[in-house]
Amino acid sequence: MKLVLKISGKLVNPEDPGYILKLADVVRELVREGHRVAVVIGGGGIARKYIDACRSLGGSEGICDLMGIEASRLNALLFTIALGDLVYRRVVRNIDEMLEAWSTGLVVAAGGFQPGQSTVAVSAIIAEMISADLLIYATVVSGIYDRDPTLDPNAKLLKRVSVEELRRILSRQSVSAGRYELIDPLALSIIERSRIRVAVIDGRDPTTIIQAVRGEDIGTLVVHE
Amino acid sequence: MKLVLKISGKLVNPEDPGYILKLADVVRELVREGHRVAVVIGGGGIARKYIDACRSLGGSEGICDLMGIEASRLNALLFTIALGDLVYRRVVRNIDEMLEAWSTGLVVAAGGFQPGQSTVAVSAIIAEMISADLLIYATVVSGIYDRDPTLDPNAKLLKRVSVEELRRILSRQSVSAGRYELIDPLALSIIERSRIRVAVIDGRDPTTIIQAVRGEDIGTLVVHE
Amino acid sequence: MKLVLKISGKLVNPEDPGYILKLADVVRELVREGHRVAVVIGGGGIARKYIDACRSLGGSEGICDLMGIEASRLNALLFTIALGDLVYRRVVRNIDEMLEAWSTGLVVAAGGFQPGQSTVAVSAIIAEMISADLLIYATVVSGIYDRDPTLDPNAKLLKRVSVEELRRILSRQSVSAGRYELIDPLALSIIERSRIRVAVIDGRDPTTIIQAVRGEDIGTLVVHE
Amino acid sequence: MKLVLKISGKLVNPEDPGYILKLADVVRELVREGHRVAVVIGGGGIARKYIDACRSLGGSEGICDLMGIEASRLNALLFTIALGDLVYRRVVRNIDEMLEAWSTGLVVAAGGFQPGQSTVAVSAIIAEMISADLLIYATVVSGIYDRDPTLDPNAKLLKRVSVEELRRILSRQSVSAGRYELIDPLALSIIERSRIRVAVIDGRDPTTIIQAVRGEDIGTLVVHE
Amino acid sequence: MKLVLKISGKLVNPEDPGYILKLADVVRELVREGHRVAVVIGGGGIARKYIDACRSLGGSEGICDLMGIEASRLNALLFTIALGDLVYRRVVRNIDEMLEAWSTGLVVAAGGFQPGQSTVAVSAIIAEMISADLLIYATVVSGIYDRDPTLDPNAKLLKRVSVEELRRILSRQSVSAGRYELIDPLALSIIERSRIRVAVIDGRDPTTIIQAVRGEDIGTLVVHE
Amino acid sequence: MKLVLKISGKLVNPEDPGYILKLADVVRELVREGHRVAVVIGGGGIARKYIDACRSLGGSEGICDLMGIEASRLNALLFTIALGDLVYRRVVRNIDEMLEAWSTGLVVAAGGFQPGQSTVAVSAIIAEMISADLLIYATVVSGIYDRDPTLDPNAKLLKRVSVEELRRILSRQSVSAGRYELIDPLALSIIERSRIRVAVIDGRDPTTIIQAVRGEDIGTLVVHE
Repeated sequence: MKLVLKISGKLVNPEDPGYILKLADVVRELVREGHRVAVVIGGGGIARKYIDACRSLGGSEGICDLMGIEASRLNALLFTIALGDLVYRRVVRNIDEMLEAWSTGLVVAAGGFQPGQSTVAVSAIIAEMISADLLIYATVVSGIYDRDPTLDPNAKLLKRVSVEELRRILSRQSVSAGRYELIDPLALSIIERSRIRVAVIDGRDPTTIIQAVRGEDIGTLVVHE
Repeated sequence: MKLVLKISGKLVNPEDPGYILKLADVVRELVREGHRVAVVIGGGGIARKYIDACRSLGGSEGICDLMGIEASRLNALLFTIALGDLVYRRVVRNIDEMLEAWSTGLVVAAGGFQPGQSTVAVSAIIAEMISADLLIYATVVSGIYDRDPTLDPNAKLLKRVSVEELRRILSRQSVSAGRYELIDPLALSIIERSRIRVAVIDGRDPTTIIQAVRGEDIGTLVVHE
Repeated sequence: MKLVLKISGKLVNPEDPGYILKLADVVRELVREGHRVAVVIGGGGIARKYIDACRSLGGSEGICDLMGIEASRLNALLFTIALGDLVYRRVVRNIDEMLEAWSTGLVVAAGGFQPGQSTVAVSAIIAEMISADLLIYATVVSGIYDRDPTLDPNAKLLKRVSVEELRRILSRQSVSAGRYELIDPLALSIIERSRIRVAVIDGRDPTTIIQAVRGEDIGTLVVHE
Repeated sequence: MKLVLKISGKLVNPEDPGYILKLADVVRELVREGHRVAVVIGGGGIARKYIDACRSLGGSEGICDLMGIEASRLNALLFTIALGDLVYRRVVRNIDEMLEAWSTGLVVAAGGFQPGQSTVAVSAIIAEMISADLLIYATVVSGIYDRDPTLDPNAKLLKRVSVEELRRILSRQSVSAGRYELIDPLALSIIERSRIRVAVIDGRDPTTIIQAVRGEDIGTLVVHE
Repeated sequence: MKLVLKISGKLVNPEDPGYILKLADVVRELVREGHRVAVVIGGGGIARKYIDACRSLGGSEGICDLMGIEASRLNALLFTIALGDLVYRRVVRNIDEMLEAWSTGLVVAAGGFQPGQSTVAVSAIIAEMISADLLIYATVVSGIYDRDPTLDPNAKLLKRVSVEELRRILSRQSVSAGRYELIDPLALSIIERSRIRVAVIDGRDPTTIIQAVRGEDIGTLVVHE
Repeated sequence: MKLVLKISGKLVNPEDPGYILKLADVVRELVREGHRVAVVIGGGGIARKYIDACRSLGGSEGICDLMGIEASRLNALLFTIALGDLVYRRVVRNIDEMLEAWSTGLVVAAGGFQPGQSTVAVSAIIAEMISADLLIYATVVSGIYDRDPTLDPNAKLLKRVSVEELRRILSRQSVSAGRYELIDPLALSIIERSRIRVAVIDGRDPTTIIQAVRGEDIGTLVVHE
């Protein structure tokens, strides 16, 4: 299968190299099983720090996005180190570089691409370009809930969700640099128009990624009628 | 002022070099008055042809977007020819090249940047990056209507519209390659978060652009409360 | 064998995706048989439109050539879509990128390279760089005639032609952007100095390419004594 | 004057945007006085975090250097935000990009360039390439001491020091990624061979940079007999 | 005026830095008088050495051309050193880089661009792209003769020559790497189609270039009826 | 094994294509045995000529280094011609390009990378980045001596040498462009910090490289306690 993994920036950061090692083992296993893999990694805490500094320096939202993107690339670079010879050694910076790197047959790692775009949108764009079979979004919650689980204890995890419902759930979220929640509207549009299969899972234990690839019933599946 | 002009692809195409000449005269005039200008040009009919061919070859929506983007760059290149020495001679392909070109002090021309993104979104991203004073969207209708004027003869032109209203009006539009209507959700989010002043005008006569820069009351103004 | 295919821009254009599909099938077949293939595609009608527009905007011949080159790259991109994973995903823009792309072992696609140079010359340059075994020039006539067949009904198709004769036949043709006839003097010089085997064939049915590769007696063969 | 400022990574970091603002004011003042300025910024604490993570993932020293370099570029990017339109908007990544950016007449910002090379060495290389009149090294101590002031309370600040003495003082320091002390041997060799004037100053208050440019007697001056 | 200077590789080589200094003085003078200048420098003796080595290693003519091109860039780089801050610091490698560099307003230096193309052709391509007012070809003979002056003592220097005559004189020359004589067919075609004014002069004393710019009657002028 | 070969510029030059052929045969043999190989080639006599010219034109040491680097790339390009399809066709110019090229699985060739850095240092940086098993430095003497063998007839060849001793032997050498002796301090620091195995051998007969790879007792081995 052609797989795109979007790893939340909350999961990958320099203070926790142990996590990165485990993630690399998972990707190594997927490659061994014959899958082709692209990995998109978020900016996490480091990104947030630089974005905050950017704002207090009066940078435009676009420039501050750029800072977050560069930070996400640090995380992606760190991940390539753990993967070693299986990975294209440069973190790709836009769709052109992505296509070049993909041509080598190696695993490809990316952070953000462009201002105004979350790393979730990047993973959807890549999934669309390579006609991926599955886009796995590994985050720090168990999947998609019908309401915000951090605010409402009665929020219910959805096993399956249509793009339509998802749009309703996610509507009204602001696109301020570094504060994208789950799946932003751009990502959603791309997922919808290309009917991309998406699994949102709790990635704190990265072996769940393998479960998702095998089709086990974890997290939330975005479905297209 | 720092200005971003988004010119609809329906206006710029090789069959009508006369239009391009007039547009170049307008930009020349703006430069003479001391404005700095970035121009983003859509793909228009050529883009549509290549996107249709791409689809019938089974290309993914992302790849077909890429075809449309390359076509829009042809139009942008054509425009640079009419501007001559006032313009950065290469059509910029992403935000990094945009920033480099902008550093030279010349007019900068762009077509699309990336799959999943309309040229309207590109113009909003650029406007945000350079902290533009005004983003002018020159299209083939008189501005923004409360309903689709091509379907409903009673549609009313809005003099001013908030982002909130605009989102309501534009909601539910699909993001299929080459079929972006007016202002897509990504463009809208960026316009909103950075409170970018936007004027949507009828650009069939490009001198309306100068009117819009001078603050004359034409087309629709997107306002931020 | 190492093969360079030069496909006339008159054959590849977005209005005829069926042709592109057939061409892709032919290249796929060649790859299956173990050949390595580079494909150079002309600008055709789209190029002509943009070149005409460029001229009426007062662009220099060099700039107008550049427009034609960009248009030829659109056609080459369209072709890569039909080939899918067998092809290097980016259309190469100069000889440096060509060499990089060729190193991957994939099929490589190009449009034009540089002002003052036809895509026939590009195909000869590539053939020389990679020491190609055969350069096939697929066009819309049956081969090389002793006189211009569009002007003289008695023109005779040549089975074999030496570079010397060819130069005599082609002498005095003007090198105006987008109007290169058959084989321009630069292409001819390169073919001569490196003694490149060239077959000029009618490519309207792309399976003739396979015939030419197999050494069947079609079209015109340029021979070196 | 042509000036190169090397700012210790300990001074520039996202947690202290106030410092960056002050530094930008200093550079703005230097530009106003007619100086041309290149600024090289170290990686500081962020670099150290990523280098540590890299080591615990088993990355080679070269790869870990690369992580530190990318981190230093984040700091340099942050600095460009505070400088706005006076600065070349992209952080330069090697000497080729440096020369291109310098050609625009703008302030140029860099982080690290290459594994095995401190940002001090980068600043010396740049100073040499542009024949800088002065290289100012702004750090967190008052200048160069005859012994390590953090270990020996009797260490004495040197007003002037020859390269010969400096080499003696600095000898035997290890070149482990992210642990370069003051001036490494490569930087020293370049400073020596091109007789670059160097002032090492306490940059915690960035206005000391202006004092150093004016030739005031602060910090340590590296002299060439 | 917009000027392109093509300097024969026989004139510029590392063994004669004195010549390069004088040439730089001439260009400096031209810039002072308000001209914009592009300089194209041939490969000369170094190129020939590498091309010979390439041939004896069995390299294709195209690869050997590439060696000569790289050698010509060494000469161009040497020239930029003598010009200092007036020149774009990087030697441009293709027409895209040329256009970028030209946008800065500085003098631009080039060696060769592409296999199959002499540096004379490069100078014609550049002249066409920037709509140059004059292309000066400084070589080691006094201009264009009616016959080869090295073979025939009765060869007569032509004051003016049409492209038509020139083509007759130059016909039948081989295009073997590094052995282009005077003006090759590609250069000639471009000169013809864009009616470029060309002066061929003896550049052994580079001040003749200033004479040619001032319209003095030296060397041979290529004229267009 | 992962091998880095540093070939002295004194060995590779266009006047001796026979040597390059033999060297290519050796590398071909190593590839056949399953080794992965990077080759770094010095500038030799051509570099020295251009550096001398640069100095007499008043170029800074950094710029003159750049001239030497470009010259070394000519030699590296010449070597790629002899290797043909086994080698990545472009000479890599910095560590980023090196990593990209290495990802293809081909032999990679480099000349110099950056001013202030010998090609020995480049070979050490590459060895570190790819975690090479052995760095072979092929030069024109039999290995490392306890004193300068060109000055002292009693100088003794060392079979093994520690970095510590080596530093003592090499201390006090100047880093003037093109005059790096054996192993410069930067190379030494990298060799030390990453404990790189280094063999210094007489490469005048390139088959000694195979002997060194097989662990035969030739030249000098740099050892880490």
